[in-house]
Amino acid sequence: MSQYPTKVYLDNQIVDQIDAKISVFDRGFLFGDGIYEVMVKIDGKILYEQEHMDRFKQCLKKINIPFRTEDLPEKISDLLQASQLSDADCLIYFQVTRGTAPRKHAFPDNIEPSFVMYALPISLPDINQDHLSVITMPDFRWSRCDIKMISLLGTVMANDEATKQGAYEAVFIREGKVTEASHCNVFFAKDDIVYTHPVNEFILDGVTRRIVLSLCDDLGIVVKEEAVDQANITRMDEAFLTGTTTQIASIRQIDQHYFYQGDAIGSTTKKLQAAFYEHRKQLEPIIDGQDV
Amino acid sequence: MSQYPTKVYLDNQIVDQIDAKISVFDRGFLFGDGIYEVMVKIDGKILYEQEHMDRFKQCLKKINIPFRTEDLPEKISDLLQASQLSDADCLIYFQVTRGTAPRKHAFPDNIEPSFVMYALPISLPDINQDHLSVITMPDFRWSRCDIKMISLLGTVMANDEATKQGAYEAVFIREGKVTEASHCNVFFAKDDIVYTHPVNEFILDGVTRRIVLSLCDDLGIVVKEEAVDQANITRMDEAFLTGTTTQIASIRQIDQHYFYQGDAIGSTTKKLQAAFYEHRKQLEPIIDGQDV
Repeated sequence: MSQYPTKVYLDNQIVDQIDAKISVFDRGFLFGDGIYEVMVKIDGKILYEQEHMDRFKQCLKKINIPFRTEDLPEKISDLLQASQLSDADCLIYFQVTRGTAPRKHAFPDNIEPSFVMYALPISLPDINQDHLSVITMPDFRWSRCDIKMISLLGTVMANDEATKQGAYEAVFIREGKVTEASHCNVFFAKDDIVYTHPVNEFILDGVTRRIVLSLCDDLGIVVKEEAVDQANITRMDEAFLTGTTTQIASIRQIDQHYFYQGDAIGSTTKKLQAAFYEHRKQLEPIIDGQDV
Repeated sequence: MSQYPTKVYLDNQIVDQIDAKISVFDRGFLFGDGIYEVMVKIDGKILYEQEHMDRFKQCLKKINIPFRTEDLPEKISDLLQASQLSDADCLIYFQVTRGTAPRKHAFPDNIEPSFVMYALPISLPDINQDHLSVITMPDFRWSRCDIKMISLLGTVMANDEATKQGAYEAVFIREGKVTEASHCNVFFAKDDIVYTHPVNEFILDGVTRRIVLSLCDDLGIVVKEEAVDQANITRMDEAFLTGTTTQIASIRQIDQHYFYQGDAIGSTTKKLQAAFYEHRKQLEPIIDGQDV
């Protein structure tokens, strides 16, 4: 995904990427004062679009940015057309910042939020066949990880450390317990029971996480929304990550511990991967971009 | 300070504020991936310029942004001239972000950092005569507050809450102890001893904080770099904030507790305010903008 899009939706118009510029006084640039969302469109369907839109609205509300999302589906449709991605699988990224104003920390009055969106072609496997390595690190982020904000320096630093160590992700440990990874939720399985951190201010309420929990319910898999102690990680049978582009991905190695050798993937992980693929296949297709 | 500057230094040129625009793919805008600094120029002198520059360089190094600061003093001089502020008291703000690249969390290779700087006229009193109200709140920020980063949503939220409650600042409490305020350091005095949080990853190593500690030394005031328990705040005799534009400001009220009635300011606070004014008056003036 290391490419620029051709087109960018900037406030109320679609412009060439090279012309997509904002004021240096945009509070996104000065303060990281904004919210973002990432969705994927596969086989003509934006996966779990309503869930993403709902979370986006909730996060905007949490930080008190008055942005109207009603016409977002239409804007997405227009962007995809302009980007020649209406018929292609793609990733859709958008962010809203508080707007442009002279720099002061507290919210200025009556400014217009800024909107930026772009789409990029993407190729997602039906089932993620990766065998990931991850590292653990202390959760040094703030304690409002439920807010999907663009103030992401902590996430950037964690990802860079993971990349340097040849790992896909950094898994955070807060007070001795696994919270989440830098851009994924984390699950474990032990004796056919699935464990994941409960939804609170220490993790993002991931859309894929929520789907996985409902699939567990469908499949009769017992779930405990309990944080796993770091000390118990090596006693788990399986571990996997969930995320919008990651989907469900098996963790082979965490730090020096291997859950599997070779290409093995745990039975619970496999069951959920297959169920997730079936679930997303059965989603309703977009009809003229007016599905929401 | 709710005004735009006339001119902005953007990368290698000075432009009108209205033309100061950056790519939406600047990592400052997508990730809050950058470092900033604020200095003031009073009576022809940039106060503690070397200390600010040193901290700026340290912070860039901490997050691994390879930006050369050698020609910053010359750029400042050019900006002040273009802004017609060479002979005026002013505030100087600058930030460096990692640069512009397609969005992915981990650092991209070989991109050019982005530089933005502006100056605004400012009027600082010789001695800050304010009697501030502050509120306390849990320190929900990350645990690398030593890094002066632009991922500031937590600070924005804290400031907004303080503003809503009619307070000047939010003072953070981490594990029962006072760390710092959202854009100031916090000091207390009790029985002629000055207390402030030690320099570590929970607070910014403030330039004014450092000057105050050296002034305490000059004045024979005992300093304990120990965090004050929240439970002990009301037992303190005095409290004050320090910061580049705040200088040294007396706290009259913290939450429901009043240190003073009316216009009283504690004797230790007053001594330090007077000594700070003398100290900054004796700094060397800029000679042709070439003092650093």
